[in-house]
Amino acid sequence: MYDVFRKYINEVTSSIIPDDEFKHYEEAFAKKTMKKKQFFLHEGSVCKYAAFIVKGAMRLYSIDEKGHEHIVRFGIESWWMTDRESFQMLTPSRYNIDAVEDCELLVTTSEAVARLKDRSPLFLKLMQILDQNSYIASQHRIESTISYTAEEKFMQLMNTYPAFLHRFPQNMIASYLGLTPETLSRIRKQVLLK
Amino acid sequence: MYDVFRKYINEVTSSIIPDDEFKHYEEAFAKKTMKKKQFFLHEGSVCKYAAFIVKGAMRLYSIDEKGHEHIVRFGIESWWMTDRESFQMLTPSRYNIDAVEDCELLVTTSEAVARLKDRSPLFLKLMQILDQNSYIASQHRIESTISYTAEEKFMQLMNTYPAFLHRFPQNMIASYLGLTPETLSRIRKQVLLK
Repeated sequence: MYDVFRKYINEVTSSIIPDDEFKHYEEAFAKKTMKKKQFFLHEGSVCKYAAFIVKGAMRLYSIDEKGHEHIVRFGIESWWMTDRESFQMLTPSRYNIDAVEDCELLVTTSEAVARLKDRSPLFLKLMQILDQNSYIASQHRIESTISYTAEEKFMQLMNTYPAFLHRFPQNMIASYLGLTPETLSRIRKQVLLK
Repeated sequence: MYDVFRKYINEVTSSIIPDDEFKHYEEAFAKKTMKKKQFFLHEGSVCKYAAFIVKGAMRLYSIDEKGHEHIVRFGIESWWMTDRESFQMLTPSRYNIDAVEDCELLVTTSEAVARLKDRSPLFLKLMQILDQNSYIASQHRIESTISYTAEEKFMQLMNTYPAFLHRFPQNMIASYLGLTPETLSRIRKQVLLK
């Protein structure tokens, strides 16, 4: 599992991390497996862990007063999963995180992250690149949710994260796009017929 | 203008920046004024500048094929304004940025930002805090756009950024929330009557 993580760090930072520096990552990140449908975080708890997904699929979602789920984030291999607000501020989370498939994770705590920032200059670079990428991705997603038609939202997802369509069931994809399952089903048919 | 900026840096980083360190900020940021409706960025150009708003109001928006504007970001005093993707990757922007009110700005370039990162340890801290805050704010906005009703979206904006409602015209607020002006007008009346 650490090999995948090491390769990922090298790729994202365009560097080769030395053995003695990577040792700190092995200390900071623990292996964890999760079965499908198991919870990583329950609404109301503090999100003590952040996970790097080595294998599997997860989702972060809220549940509204009517009991409807709203999926804010998906995660698959080489993505990170946590409620960052709760993880860093130690406030109770408004979200749930669970495993959509069986998962192999590398998990860390905010204390371990703080130590790693001191010990590995590359980790700071990694964090900066990830922050920037997620800022840009969020901006795209905000733009699409406020301005795109249902069909355009689906097309954008198909072009940007095609893997999501095979990994997550249709009702979750609909929730992620802010559409009803019926609307998504109609659009899928239209798009696939084109 | 630099006094406001200095106070802002001290507040955000919970530090007191020394004179010799702040000198680098005065070198990195130039004063700029803009008249209402003037453009800071045109779609298709590279966004060469990032602005700290000392006074005034700005917006970042895209225009779709039918000519409709979609407002992705607003900015007022002590907010930053740039198309970060274009600013950092030097790619042509998909957005326009203009002044909604007369503005006083402190503007910088990506080269100056890179130099400042080397010269001011506090600047790295500032960037990290801003990145974290904008990540959290984006997550809230994504959640509200996919899961809230029109009324809930308006209420959230009223609670989170009440100043926006006085600073930006109704048609812009509607665009920012992804609502039609008619829907926003109906909701405003309902909410104000309650």
